[in-house]
Amino acid sequence: MMSQHIDAYLVPTVDPHFSEYTAEHWKSRRWLSGFTGSAGTLVVGNATAALWTDSRYFVQAQMQLQGTDIQLQKQGEEGTPSPEAWLQQHYPKGGVIGLDGRLISHRDFEQLQEELSAFTFVIDVDLVDQVWKDRPILSVAPVWQMTKEQAGMGVMEKWQAVSEAYDGKPYLLTALDEIAWLFNIRGNDIAYNPVCTAFALVEDQQAVLFVDARKISPEIKASLESEKVLILPYESLFEYCQFYKNQTLIYNASKTNQLTYATLQAMGIHLVAEAAGASPVSLMKACKTSAEVEGFRLAMLEDGVAWTKLLFWLDTQLSTGVSVTEMQVAEAFALFRKKECASYLDESFEPIVAYAEHGAIVHYEPTPETDCRIERDAFLLMDTGAHYSFGTTDTTRTWHFGIPTDEEKRNYTLVLQGMIRLSMAHFPKGTRGAQLDMLARQPLMSNGMSFAHGTGHGVGHVLCVHEGPQSIRLQENPVLLQPGMIQSNEPAVYITGKYGIRIENLIHVQKSELTAWGEFYAFETLTLVPICTSAVDFSLLSVQEKEFLQKYQDQVFNKLSPRLSQEETKWLSIHTLIA
Amino acid sequence: MMSQHIDAYLVPTVDPHFSEYTAEHWKSRRWLSGFTGSAGTLVVGNATAALWTDSRYFVQAQMQLQGTDIQLQKQGEEGTPSPEAWLQQHYPKGGVIGLDGRLISHRDFEQLQEELSAFTFVIDVDLVDQVWKDRPILSVAPVWQMTKEQAGMGVMEKWQAVSEAYDGKPYLLTALDEIAWLFNIRGNDIAYNPVCTAFALVEDQQAVLFVDARKISPEIKASLESEKVLILPYESLFEYCQFYKNQTLIYNASKTNQLTYATLQAMGIHLVAEAAGASPVSLMKACKTSAEVEGFRLAMLEDGVAWTKLLFWLDTQLSTGVSVTEMQVAEAFALFRKKECASYLDESFEPIVAYAEHGAIVHYEPTPETDCRIERDAFLLMDTGAHYSFGTTDTTRTWHFGIPTDEEKRNYTLVLQGMIRLSMAHFPKGTRGAQLDMLARQPLMSNGMSFAHGTGHGVGHVLCVHEGPQSIRLQENPVLLQPGMIQSNEPAVYITGKYGIRIENLIHVQKSELTAWGEFYAFETLTLVPICTSAVDFSLLSVQEKEFLQKYQDQVFNKLSPRLSQEETKWLSIHTLIA
Repeated sequence: MMSQHIDAYLVPTVDPHFSEYTAEHWKSRRWLSGFTGSAGTLVVGNATAALWTDSRYFVQAQMQLQGTDIQLQKQGEEGTPSPEAWLQQHYPKGGVIGLDGRLISHRDFEQLQEELSAFTFVIDVDLVDQVWKDRPILSVAPVWQMTKEQAGMGVMEKWQAVSEAYDGKPYLLTALDEIAWLFNIRGNDIAYNPVCTAFALVEDQQAVLFVDARKISPEIKASLESEKVLILPYESLFEYCQFYKNQTLIYNASKTNQLTYATLQAMGIHLVAEAAGASPVSLMKACKTSAEVEGFRLAMLEDGVAWTKLLFWLDTQLSTGVSVTEMQVAEAFALFRKKECASYLDESFEPIVAYAEHGAIVHYEPTPETDCRIERDAFLLMDTGAHYSFGTTDTTRTWHFGIPTDEEKRNYTLVLQGMIRLSMAHFPKGTRGAQLDMLARQPLMSNGMSFAHGTGHGVGHVLCVHEGPQSIRLQENPVLLQPGMIQSNEPAVYITGKYGIRIENLIHVQKSELTAWGEFYAFETLTLVPICTSAVDFSLLSVQEKEFLQKYQDQVFNKLSPRLSQEETKWLSIHTLIA
Repeated sequence: MMSQHIDAYLVPTVDPHFSEYTAEHWKSRRWLSGFTGSAGTLVVGNATAALWTDSRYFVQAQMQLQGTDIQLQKQGEEGTPSPEAWLQQHYPKGGVIGLDGRLISHRDFEQLQEELSAFTFVIDVDLVDQVWKDRPILSVAPVWQMTKEQAGMGVMEKWQAVSEAYDGKPYLLTALDEIAWLFNIRGNDIAYNPVCTAFALVEDQQAVLFVDARKISPEIKASLESEKVLILPYESLFEYCQFYKNQTLIYNASKTNQLTYATLQAMGIHLVAEAAGASPVSLMKACKTSAEVEGFRLAMLEDGVAWTKLLFWLDTQLSTGVSVTEMQVAEAFALFRKKECASYLDESFEPIVAYAEHGAIVHYEPTPETDCRIERDAFLLMDTGAHYSFGTTDTTRTWHFGIPTDEEKRNYTLVLQGMIRLSMAHFPKGTRGAQLDMLARQPLMSNGMSFAHGTGHGVGHVLCVHEGPQSIRLQENPVLLQPGMIQSNEPAVYITGKYGIRIENLIHVQKSELTAWGEFYAFETLTLVPICTSAVDFSLLSVQEKEFLQKYQDQVFNKLSPRLSQEETKWLSIHTLIA
């Protein structure tokens, strides 16, 4: 920092493409500070350093920062300055801020500059690289292809549709899941997100994929070239773009990093940000083709078998007094899935297995420090999912292996009722997620409860388990729910110090009927995992809600039982029976 | 037009304060064209004229324009140009457009200028006045006062709160209901809206009311002066505002007419438009004081008695074979109310009494041409309300005096179920109306139906029966529902050519409980009119919904029966009984 005249150096927790999970190579904040949480910003000053993280990680960060001289800044607590305010306090006359310009979007960088107008910025430095001697190298894992049959759309069809959406004007893609979707490819560069690091350009006569050549087999290269795709090295984006000097290039300001933006800008390219909000690509990706939906249905069958086998195994272990811990169950999910299905790729996110009071910690993941034995006295919340080569799952079940109290039954039933009401929704074309959110929350709210997260997020097709642009949440989101969209349905309630209850299925927007009032849509429930009914207070459910539940359990039994052992089938038949 | 070199003259359907209803004096469009509908824009060119109106009025306008040479332009139909496009077609090189600048808001005028950039505008002409010899004069009806006890807030308290909201900066009020609210006065200048024509200025040391002195009694003058209100003639706004030369004045760009804006602007006043959306005054007015809510409760009691007497009378007439028409019922509402309550002032809007297929016409009001005899074979939809000196009502009931079909029962029950579900909603502080709208619609939508209007509008306290800024509709509206807000709850279904069903109560946002999840609100139902239960299919309602309905009917009976005759009480006891 001194030799480069930098007063403060910013280390965020992202990669150059703003993926939800980051490769080991990009975990500089963790390496520098020792703090392993998934969210945090480190600011290294010339005399002091500080780390910002949110309430999920206060205790963990405090422990992990001990002896480092890094101040912990508790985001959201009164009196905690923002990193920007902290910098202004420590450098009242301004100064030079350094950061790796690949790790901030153009939109965020503009805002940072505006807030810190007394500072100058150096963005073409990666100081971490100079000191992190054993930094993990970037992945060169091979890319694999989604067939046209699995994707439901060919690559040329896709890029031509994108080009049309931009009136034939060249469009720069930087989000890895959008690139993977566009070229029907999947990678292994990042845990949980089967994407590969790349840039892409959609032109009117071809699409260009900038990717490390070592990842692309000759077969894939030939296949892509036959769809009018030009493959160039990842680093050659700028060289290729010299062609666009004095010409217009459309880009996404919140998904393009500042170093890329500044480099292209300096080359004399006229960069035009597309309108904020849902981009045409994100909408096309969100509306699954019928082939993709079919892939989801297959994945649900595989995953349902694995879940049921795991639940039976767990119930048996508990019945026979064998000790099982949260971490053991988390690991068992991957094992059962792998054993069950040759097309299993990976978990789709870090599994959450949370017993009793751990369930009330929304983002709890068991670690050796917190791991505990699962008993029959409280709720066990399990939120896990997987990628199969044809589809992705994300399921939460809350199970009680003993006898729940009346309060537990009431709260469990209210969560279930919200999940069922949203599942049963019929709604006309033109409906937004925020309009449906209340259906899932009203049973809880009627009892003075709610949950502080969204009800539903989009789910990628063998891509990111959390994707946009639609959502089902309290907050307004102008994106309309459209046929083919797949999202989660996960109301919940968290009783601090006691337990958490969350029940999550994936639901798929389908055309339902055309009436004098217009076109109507309804949800198809995709998930096939039994719902724990021993915790249901049936007196709280309406006739229609009970019918929905019985139909669901019957479907689960009918679809899964052919794949189960006799003992497992018996267990499932008992557990899918409702009073 | 020729002598003033005007090529086209615009005649909108508003008054200089953009009231929902307009005084006779301002009905120039009606007088010029002969078209009596409530919505329309007339453009008089130098060779031709055209009138725009919406689908509600196509048939009526066609008839009324016969022989006038005025072209009917059917808004919303394919191929119909907007008035702006029509002007561009007829005057391709531009020209001079004249209009009374009092009849367009500054915001709309700016948009008009932008769209018609080839035209010049003359806004200080009222050509209609020069030809309309027997034009009705403006009202000088006396103003009356809402006492501090009835309003729950004194006048000084109110204008000081407004002044504080604008940091002591002077604020110009132009909406008549906001002015009436601010000064605790009511007027008689406009049918259905008990307001008086005025301007107002809130300064940091006083408030100024610009109003025709003839409307203000010496007592009211003295009372207002004691609250630091300066009363000046309506026309003296500009003279008074000379004081503000080179100073800042805050105004509402969508509620201030262009002539007022341009005049103040030309005087060298620095006019600053407040942010679009809910103004502080509109929010204060919307959140009723407990005294105002108490006034609403009293009004509901009076109105409930009148409704019940009318329903009993109507049922008796039909039973004895006496002919009763829609118009007779519409008139009977005012008569029953007047007879029942000395504090009755006026209907709060044009009564809707619509038998059978008339009910499917959303804005149907019976006229001599359409009036028909009410029979026992179909639904009768009645939507009426009144102003009492202490509160305002707006109630819709749909009654079947015979035996409804199964389809009629199902549709009636779905509407009722939506009304009940919204009435029963519990929701946390911070909830918007658009989040609750789905509760009222889901029963209909589940059966492929809906309704093309909002579910709920705000209701003024002895002011406009439709007021903002909150709403319960499909469309996003960022205004949060807050304690004291009173709005309608009126789901509906319209079966073209057969019948309409709408059931409407007013509901009041109340604090409900404080839990670990925050503060919760719930609705208090204010309306006290029996609901027709002979059309309910109880098998469709949940236990809780049936309980709500029984409780509601019991409350109606208990509160109203002391004011009814023995025969009426007997009728009500039968009609408030549920299966």
